[in-house]
Amino acid sequence: MIDLNADLGEGFGRWRLTDDAALLSVVTSANVACGFHAGDPSTMRRVCALAAERGVRIGAQVSYRDLAGFGRRAMEVPAEELAAEVAYQIGALEVFARAAGARVAYVKPHGALYNRVVHDGEQAAAVVEGVLLADAALPVLGLPGSRFLAAAAKAGLPTVTEAFGDRAYTEEGTLAPRGHEGAVLTEPDTVVERSLGLAREGEVTTLSGRRIPVRARSLCLHGDTPGAVELARRVRARLEEAGVRVEAFA
Amino acid sequence: MIDLNADLGEGFGRWRLTDDAALLSVVTSANVACGFHAGDPSTMRRVCALAAERGVRIGAQVSYRDLAGFGRRAMEVPAEELAAEVAYQIGALEVFARAAGARVAYVKPHGALYNRVVHDGEQAAAVVEGVLLADAALPVLGLPGSRFLAAAAKAGLPTVTEAFGDRAYTEEGTLAPRGHEGAVLTEPDTVVERSLGLAREGEVTTLSGRRIPVRARSLCLHGDTPGAVELARRVRARLEEAGVRVEAFA
Amino acid sequence: MIDLNADLGEGFGRWRLTDDAALLSVVTSANVACGFHAGDPSTMRRVCALAAERGVRIGAQVSYRDLAGFGRRAMEVPAEELAAEVAYQIGALEVFARAAGARVAYVKPHGALYNRVVHDGEQAAAVVEGVLLADAALPVLGLPGSRFLAAAAKAGLPTVTEAFGDRAYTEEGTLAPRGHEGAVLTEPDTVVERSLGLAREGEVTTLSGRRIPVRARSLCLHGDTPGAVELARRVRARLEEAGVRVEAFA
Amino acid sequence: MIDLNADLGEGFGRWRLTDDAALLSVVTSANVACGFHAGDPSTMRRVCALAAERGVRIGAQVSYRDLAGFGRRAMEVPAEELAAEVAYQIGALEVFARAAGARVAYVKPHGALYNRVVHDGEQAAAVVEGVLLADAALPVLGLPGSRFLAAAAKAGLPTVTEAFGDRAYTEEGTLAPRGHEGAVLTEPDTVVERSLGLAREGEVTTLSGRRIPVRARSLCLHGDTPGAVELARRVRARLEEAGVRVEAFA
Repeated sequence: MIDLNADLGEGFGRWRLTDDAALLSVVTSANVACGFHAGDPSTMRRVCALAAERGVRIGAQVSYRDLAGFGRRAMEVPAEELAAEVAYQIGALEVFARAAGARVAYVKPHGALYNRVVHDGEQAAAVVEGVLLADAALPVLGLPGSRFLAAAAKAGLPTVTEAFGDRAYTEEGTLAPRGHEGAVLTEPDTVVERSLGLAREGEVTTLSGRRIPVRARSLCLHGDTPGAVELARRVRARLEEAGVRVEAFA
Repeated sequence: MIDLNADLGEGFGRWRLTDDAALLSVVTSANVACGFHAGDPSTMRRVCALAAERGVRIGAQVSYRDLAGFGRRAMEVPAEELAAEVAYQIGALEVFARAAGARVAYVKPHGALYNRVVHDGEQAAAVVEGVLLADAALPVLGLPGSRFLAAAAKAGLPTVTEAFGDRAYTEEGTLAPRGHEGAVLTEPDTVVERSLGLAREGEVTTLSGRRIPVRARSLCLHGDTPGAVELARRVRARLEEAGVRVEAFA
Repeated sequence: MIDLNADLGEGFGRWRLTDDAALLSVVTSANVACGFHAGDPSTMRRVCALAAERGVRIGAQVSYRDLAGFGRRAMEVPAEELAAEVAYQIGALEVFARAAGARVAYVKPHGALYNRVVHDGEQAAAVVEGVLLADAALPVLGLPGSRFLAAAAKAGLPTVTEAFGDRAYTEEGTLAPRGHEGAVLTEPDTVVERSLGLAREGEVTTLSGRRIPVRARSLCLHGDTPGAVELARRVRARLEEAGVRVEAFA
Repeated sequence: MIDLNADLGEGFGRWRLTDDAALLSVVTSANVACGFHAGDPSTMRRVCALAAERGVRIGAQVSYRDLAGFGRRAMEVPAEELAAEVAYQIGALEVFARAAGARVAYVKPHGALYNRVVHDGEQAAAVVEGVLLADAALPVLGLPGSRFLAAAAKAGLPTVTEAFGDRAYTEEGTLAPRGHEGAVLTEPDTVVERSLGLAREGEVTTLSGRRIPVRARSLCLHGDTPGAVELARRVRARLEEAGVRVEAFA
């Protein structure tokens, strides 16, 4: 049993990145941009309506306040400010989730914040504090072994681990940094098979060729590259064909 | 019986305009900026905590998206965008109200949007739609006779009328435009007495010297000018001394 | 002899709208977004470098400060603020034009500001004041008969008129508003022929079927729709084939 | 001979921090905010006009793009983006300097960027690249011994060192971090005497009580705290009384 999540609503004003409608036919969880790295109110409303209609779970994809950098530039935000910024984004999305008859069902940090809270205990704790401000029972999605999931668990929040079929893993089970050669896999067959391995065996082959266990309740699919939607469809089809149940986490 | 409301949390990042703590000792309703004309998440959190602590009602002061112009520049925002922007702001504030053990208890448009929805039926309807998206039972605060209150009433939202002790009124009972000479009254005794007249008799003297009825359940106090807090205190003291009960609307 | 202009660099951060490199092979003048409705500094630098390399003239496309609305929402900006905002944008672009060995060669208002200064004398004068702050000899591009070109001419700025091969014209020679049915023409052959008529005969057929004169030194091509680049290429090819010289204004 | 510099124009829209007119009577160099951490176009125009009128030199105070954090949150900005952002800010200010009959005469990084380029060679080089894009002969102001001044010197830019009369110094001649107890000195007599020591003897007493040399051509005065203007006046008066010539760097 595996959940499929993807980033959605990553437009702003006139600009669009993702084919939200198409992705919502593939995933079971939608990480919706909340206005800080992408996501204007109209887009948030539209994506929530579509997601609710298709029974896709709505998650708040929270970010540093950085439209110009798409949330990909790490920032030294004081903990108190970061917590408040996270809560603000969740609250804003909650309006549109409720208006669509749903609820914000989980929180996932975006971009540089996602990477930062893998190792940075202070920012990890700040994001958790922000989630608690919004809702003390909201699950969070993150990397297994991250400071973020540890802080969330300690605070009593349900945690959901995720893995990536299109990213290279180190021996330690962490993601190879994007800059690293071969860090992002693009060959469709490879991505499909790695996704299956992660979902069915809970294993992946590292950069150095070793097979390691990666425990993940959710697989992250990317939607912002050419061919992304088609690849996402293939991953889902392959999982189902192999008898893996594709279902949102509880 | 009269409610006293004032704009609060009108800072952004390093900048502050209002003495929030002092004003919260005077008013019964706090119009909290939600990030579009002013109001960063940390300020919103702090103001909500203070307001809840003192039993002051929390309202969402929604605005055009215009930090550079402090929401004072009217904008031709398509109705659908405006509705979503209003809902977004209410949702963001709701997080901090709830975290403080309270709720967003009403909505008041700010600045140019406030003035626009007096006459512009389309934008008035869009703001009402935004409120409905957030909460179909949320009271709205506005000018008696405005298109905004009419649209809100039609949509089933509770409406609360307000008046201004420091603004000149025309014969028609509307506010003289800010640009107009004498539109804003600054002499403290005059403001105190006009406030009392509005609260107790429901009457005010117009620019042309006529006494007209102005029905208002709330008086708006301004907090962003030198001496504003002291004047607000005097207004409240005078009202109470004259036997007017100062109390938030139901 | 006709100039061909198009909007370029209309991305922001991660987002892109226009195929800048392709359009720069077609047009003689590039209206470069300066950061207020679109256009981050890196994009501005890149587009200026490409334009200079190909001998395409660089113009500042100035806008209301409105990233969320892509500059398409008219705003009531006080004249003094608007003038300063226009000058700011021109100055920012000038750095990248100079770094590429060129100069900002003209100014064209964008979107809602473009439409507003057709009729609004106060904002027209403010934009002109902004241009004068930056450079008292900078040509401006606008609609024939607009308040903007009149104000610019009065202030001693060179004025350049433009026409649109893909927009419907009224009897008065103004553009039919975008909302109006048939206001935007998309059938390629029609656009090509109307462009030729405007460039060679200085005439266009109105919505009501009458042939009217439209004096234009520049034709505006649009680059942000599917097929736009291909259509732009066809327009240019047809003009040249018909003996019209495609050349930037002096 | 010493230059006195201060941050000016640190408002945005409705908000103000500094008493620009008063500070311009004290300093010889004005670090003008360019819109990324503070500074809207109208304020920039006004401050440049005042500075030019009083013969005060105009400098571009460039920052990370971070209005919400007032440029005080360090950011991982890719070098290419940072260079373009720096150039953009300089260009925008140049318009208003020229319109006032002056020129941007130097560049000084603000806040977190200032601190970052003391040690971070990559961002230091990016800021230098941004300055070079704007003007290959523009002096830069910074901390003696910083990576920034080293990179600037290597690139052929004139460098100007600065010191702080109100900041504690370590044995190594660097500033004690703001968080550190006693890092910011507020006792007026102390600040005045340390300023005099820095300007006349080129020496300062460190946290541990040792007297060390600090070579500085400019002293930075702060303008954003209560009593700041009065303190700045006292520093200047004391310097002049002691025979130190207060004059902008060449």
